[in-house]
Amino acid sequence: MLNQSAPLDRVFQALADPSRRLMVERLTRGPASVSELARPLDMSLAAVVQHVQVLEASGLVRSEKVGRVRTCAIEPTALRTAEQWIAERRTSWEHRLDRLGGFLAEHPDP
Amino acid sequence: MLNQSAPLDRVFQALADPSRRLMVERLTRGPASVSELARPLDMSLAAVVQHVQVLEASGLVRSEKVGRVRTCAIEPTALRTAEQWIAERRTSWEHRLDRLGGFLAEHPDP
Repeated sequence: MLNQSAPLDRVFQALADPSRRLMVERLTRGPASVSELARPLDMSLAAVVQHVQVLEASGLVRSEKVGRVRTCAIEPTALRTAEQWIAERRTSWEHRLDRLGGFLAEHPDP
Repeated sequence: MLNQSAPLDRVFQALADPSRRLMVERLTRGPASVSELARPLDMSLAAVVQHVQVLEASGLVRSEKVGRVRTCAIEPTALRTAEQWIAERRTSWEHRLDRLGGFLAEHPDP
């Protein structure tokens, strides 16, 4: 249960950085080379490569090198897993609110 | 755009730890004291307090001290913000897939 290397740890960790979120955002519009990912970012290509590696390790992104160009693409499963975890927690909280509301409706102030 | 202290950074960072996710999970079922949050976790109370502080800084949790007991509760807005960010990215990716599918349907192999 507390396995530190769980996929969710890595996905949320990967999404905790604004540059990496920008890369994910770009890749949801279609595959891109590392240089294309680097374009809007004010950082070295080496730093961009490191961010890509974190995204790949999290499962959010996969990449393939053809010749001298590494092309990255989104891997939607990891995104879905993270979304689902949050949605389940939010739903659990909302159900609790509904139950509370029901209880209060049935037990009005005297 | 690349503001490191953006709320999403902190929310995803807070969710990147399995103990903190367990605390969030517990709190979606209702408020709990710090000792109650600590019960299923194999760590010192001081470590639990630190995790609670990270959760509070992220906006996912708020806490209030009455007498000697600090009670924590979920703050659903931050959870919703993170969920929405992921959902929008996933939707953008799925729309792209739909457009690709439409294009391929209109341009079958000769």
